[in-house]
Amino acid sequence: MTIRIAVIGAGIMGADHARIVAEDLPGAKLSVVCDMDAARAQAIADQYGAEAATDPEGVIARDDVDAVIVASPDFTHAPLSLACIKAGKKVMCEKPLSQSSAECLDVMKAEEAAGSRHVMLGFMRRYDPAYIQMKRALKDGTIGRALMLHNWHRNGATPAGDFTGAMAITNSAPHEFDILRYMLDSEAVSITATQPKRSDDKVAPVVMVVQTADNQIVTIEVNNNAAYGYDVKAELVGETGSIATNHVSYTRLDKDATKSVGHDPDWRDRYAEAYRQQNRAFLAWVQGGDYPALASSSWDGYAAAVIAETGVKALESGSRQDITLIAKPEFYK
Amino acid sequence: MTIRIAVIGAGIMGADHARIVAEDLPGAKLSVVCDMDAARAQAIADQYGAEAATDPEGVIARDDVDAVIVASPDFTHAPLSLACIKAGKKVMCEKPLSQSSAECLDVMKAEEAAGSRHVMLGFMRRYDPAYIQMKRALKDGTIGRALMLHNWHRNGATPAGDFTGAMAITNSAPHEFDILRYMLDSEAVSITATQPKRSDDKVAPVVMVVQTADNQIVTIEVNNNAAYGYDVKAELVGETGSIATNHVSYTRLDKDATKSVGHDPDWRDRYAEAYRQQNRAFLAWVQGGDYPALASSSWDGYAAAVIAETGVKALESGSRQDITLIAKPEFYK
Amino acid sequence: MTIRIAVIGAGIMGADHARIVAEDLPGAKLSVVCDMDAARAQAIADQYGAEAATDPEGVIARDDVDAVIVASPDFTHAPLSLACIKAGKKVMCEKPLSQSSAECLDVMKAEEAAGSRHVMLGFMRRYDPAYIQMKRALKDGTIGRALMLHNWHRNGATPAGDFTGAMAITNSAPHEFDILRYMLDSEAVSITATQPKRSDDKVAPVVMVVQTADNQIVTIEVNNNAAYGYDVKAELVGETGSIATNHVSYTRLDKDATKSVGHDPDWRDRYAEAYRQQNRAFLAWVQGGDYPALASSSWDGYAAAVIAETGVKALESGSRQDITLIAKPEFYK
Amino acid sequence: MTIRIAVIGAGIMGADHARIVAEDLPGAKLSVVCDMDAARAQAIADQYGAEAATDPEGVIARDDVDAVIVASPDFTHAPLSLACIKAGKKVMCEKPLSQSSAECLDVMKAEEAAGSRHVMLGFMRRYDPAYIQMKRALKDGTIGRALMLHNWHRNGATPAGDFTGAMAITNSAPHEFDILRYMLDSEAVSITATQPKRSDDKVAPVVMVVQTADNQIVTIEVNNNAAYGYDVKAELVGETGSIATNHVSYTRLDKDATKSVGHDPDWRDRYAEAYRQQNRAFLAWVQGGDYPALASSSWDGYAAAVIAETGVKALESGSRQDITLIAKPEFYK
Repeated sequence: MTIRIAVIGAGIMGADHARIVAEDLPGAKLSVVCDMDAARAQAIADQYGAEAATDPEGVIARDDVDAVIVASPDFTHAPLSLACIKAGKKVMCEKPLSQSSAECLDVMKAEEAAGSRHVMLGFMRRYDPAYIQMKRALKDGTIGRALMLHNWHRNGATPAGDFTGAMAITNSAPHEFDILRYMLDSEAVSITATQPKRSDDKVAPVVMVVQTADNQIVTIEVNNNAAYGYDVKAELVGETGSIATNHVSYTRLDKDATKSVGHDPDWRDRYAEAYRQQNRAFLAWVQGGDYPALASSSWDGYAAAVIAETGVKALESGSRQDITLIAKPEFYK
Repeated sequence: MTIRIAVIGAGIMGADHARIVAEDLPGAKLSVVCDMDAARAQAIADQYGAEAATDPEGVIARDDVDAVIVASPDFTHAPLSLACIKAGKKVMCEKPLSQSSAECLDVMKAEEAAGSRHVMLGFMRRYDPAYIQMKRALKDGTIGRALMLHNWHRNGATPAGDFTGAMAITNSAPHEFDILRYMLDSEAVSITATQPKRSDDKVAPVVMVVQTADNQIVTIEVNNNAAYGYDVKAELVGETGSIATNHVSYTRLDKDATKSVGHDPDWRDRYAEAYRQQNRAFLAWVQGGDYPALASSSWDGYAAAVIAETGVKALESGSRQDITLIAKPEFYK
Repeated sequence: MTIRIAVIGAGIMGADHARIVAEDLPGAKLSVVCDMDAARAQAIADQYGAEAATDPEGVIARDDVDAVIVASPDFTHAPLSLACIKAGKKVMCEKPLSQSSAECLDVMKAEEAAGSRHVMLGFMRRYDPAYIQMKRALKDGTIGRALMLHNWHRNGATPAGDFTGAMAITNSAPHEFDILRYMLDSEAVSITATQPKRSDDKVAPVVMVVQTADNQIVTIEVNNNAAYGYDVKAELVGETGSIATNHVSYTRLDKDATKSVGHDPDWRDRYAEAYRQQNRAFLAWVQGGDYPALASSSWDGYAAAVIAETGVKALESGSRQDITLIAKPEFYK
Repeated sequence: MTIRIAVIGAGIMGADHARIVAEDLPGAKLSVVCDMDAARAQAIADQYGAEAATDPEGVIARDDVDAVIVASPDFTHAPLSLACIKAGKKVMCEKPLSQSSAECLDVMKAEEAAGSRHVMLGFMRRYDPAYIQMKRALKDGTIGRALMLHNWHRNGATPAGDFTGAMAITNSAPHEFDILRYMLDSEAVSITATQPKRSDDKVAPVVMVVQTADNQIVTIEVNNNAAYGYDVKAELVGETGSIATNHVSYTRLDKDATKSVGHDPDWRDRYAEAYRQQNRAFLAWVQGGDYPALASSSWDGYAAAVIAETGVKALESGSRQDITLIAKPEFYK
């Protein structure tokens, strides 16, 4: 039985999800594309023979929508996830669940009240081959017990409009906050954050140091104006060895006195396979499978939000801040 | 409308094609799996909810089979392709079309008589991102006019049973013969072949030098017992630069005084994306699209067979042999 | 005129300096090898036809000793440098000048009183081709203004005996403290330091974040038990690009399903060329040239000592510490 | 006792040898620089406080010249080597010994008549760390018995003046001919040579296949107009693994959407360490040591000349040519 999926949000990520559902997800059908901007919704819908809509709650409630992918602006993520829970639909919600940890708790409570999992978050790195190999190397003892995780998150340039260090922490860094918790299987307990100064008015990188409950140290560089390209890297250092993401390039070029490989322009190329596998995992769950083993849950979304909120405080105060989470509910264990 | 595909041959490649069709090809349905070995056919068929069969001609003729993928033993490729043409079905036939160039001509004649293209060959490298980037670099002038193409084809070890240098040329090298013609857009006109001697009774590598009609030089090493892993590489040298396939590895490991990346165990991992894209191109064609731009045709299969036949003569005689093709029929231009 | 050089200290570094002076420094002669352990001094001296001695002050005062290389234990560096200044001899003193910044100030005062430079410190990285290229890329604008410097200092294992996080900061990290000041041309103004916990009793890595007077951020990992080999790396991130040290290996090996390059066993292989060039620069200075442009001075030794002392406080207190240097004397500008 | 060395030839290579002898060869003194062009000789001599001269035979005969380095034009190599033998002086002669194998035989006879070795040839690759590691991997069994050696010899552009494929074989390829004999420890028995066509009037690459007496296959690409830089590479393929030269670069750069490392501009940077070690080996021999273990002898020069002569015939005839050497004299065993 084909699963009818609605994609809410027809921006860059929404368009990408619509394409994956329509063209690369056997067993699924893109039924509706919804966006506040009717023309944008229509354009994407037309491309794949889907319906267009502008009212997300209405779409979520439709009988001919079996599952929902939310890729609308960040502030709508929690309300729309709640709507999905209310409608008894499973939702793959783009990160973050909310920039407000309080709002994340609301979603958790609703999900718990519903008695079963409804929410999966789009922390797609968990489905990336590099992070999968890294996690496996840790599990199978190849590098010994994990001591440190180093992370670099570099974008070519910030999007138009003002962008601040705090926004780097709340918008970009959550990917790092999620992956560190996932990779190290331990909660973050403290964070420091600092920034160098740039000579122009673009946002400078943010350098964070996070400590986990198991006394591991995580460094994070979020550099939204790295200028040279999109470049996300990580190294997991263990007691007996170290494993790092490797630059993937299918070809290399010898020309003009250099040997070079290319950088990805943005995250869609870099994480194409991760997005594809994540949506396949979502579909398998909707089709009746278990909650996906690699998926990020509402609890994970809450934890990322708390770390981000604390990180902003650390940046503003200039001093180390403790990260305080509620006790993990049984429901999420 | 869903395309119902029969996969003929349930060996390693057939199983892989069945998996791709069943799980990774939206718009297609794996309807039948056919193999001389009924149990083997049944096992694969059961895995994906398809029917099992043992009679390939019967399967090809079935009304509820829209298109065929042939992955049975080499000697059956031409007869089954002919059966598909006769049945008016499109076929994606694994390489080689035939080890006999005469038999390839038979397929060409049948296809020509049918008045339209029916055959696409499984020279999947044309769909591999590395070769695609290489071809693009050539087309867009990045490396200037092509002068040389170097190719390495290394397998861990030959399969059980006797394997000879002639078999390396007829079984493994056709991938190289096809890619050189495709990449350089010129026909091969001569070939030399030689082998070092191994100290054991395994087949030694074959080293070939091919010249094209446009006076380009191609070197090919086919090393079926490279021992260290599956490793296919190429470098295209132009007048102003050079582009080479790059070793792709998602992670790298620092351990035991070395920094290392892994080799693929075999071609299925290395070319997973190429196989997927090739089958998508096949499906799009079956669905009514144009003959796929990257596809290898019966003519290409014929040319590869002639080069292989001539290569065997070159190896046996120890001297350079001219490669003689029939004039390319209008039908394939 | 041949310069007669005495090497004080016949341990690992002293033996290496003796070898360089005796075999790889045209214009210099290894005249004396001095060590508290007479047999050890004799062994090295015999190897190169030099004299052996056990009294460093006596050696420094000898008329037939033109210049001195100090490679004895850390606590002797300052006293022996002072003896050289008193004797009017130029000295290439291994790092650190002293682990006590107060003692460094004593050397600075003595040097200033002598009216001319006498001391060059063995922060050999300034002579390493990688750091030289990095500095050049910064100077010529290739990467724009420097924003961050990331440093990794990994050894296979700590030497026998107890080793602590504080010792990692005072013994190993000074190389990083010197290179960050040299590379960024700015003084360090604050430092934080933290450690993960290991599961065994070996010293865990120390992770430091240093801020410079020009608002640049420096991260430092000192991992004395990295287990996999000696591995020192750095990345200098600018506003328009980034330059990193590259793993240097003359060959790579395909074997056993991996492609690998080797790690250096220790710093002598890694920095062989830097040590050679540093000693050549020292010789050129002794021969009458200007104070070497790349050399690390007593002032640099003092600054490294202050950062290390502050780093230990940061590690012990768990909070960020301000780094306070005296005003830089005119003499060192 | 200091060895007084005369350098004959003050061109690019001569100037480099003069610099090494004067500045980087403890125990040696650059006594004379000799060139037909008096001004050029004087310029180099002045730079290092040596004497200038224009008469090579006169220089070779001087009592105050202990040993000679010949770096004058190719056609003078054999006559000057003969002069050195006659004068009882040891000579480090740049490659080739002669482009004429007959002339090489003359040198061999003179050396044999003299009763002891006098000639060492400047095939410096034998002293390059990459080839040393490669040879070691072969000797210690890391890659099993050698089956193939692949070689690439790429220069940015041919020097001014006409340059032909035959010249690529006689001028550039001898480095490859020497290294294949040295690496595989087997004589070359046949050779084929072919060229693609370039679209301009520059010399096209030459592609050669050489077979050894031990049935190993060697491929050689000599590409004098590779355009992108100086790039010499090799891969030695054994029965159980493969070892290749690795691109050495001290830093890598992320900028403008690429990650890149630089190519050397020419052979002096690439082989700086090899030239240095070669001259040290020469000096140690002159000082009374054994004939250097890695050195290329007159016999090796003869063999390289025969292969080159045969390679030119192979290129001109278009067919495989047998390589015929005289029986190796006892003197060179």
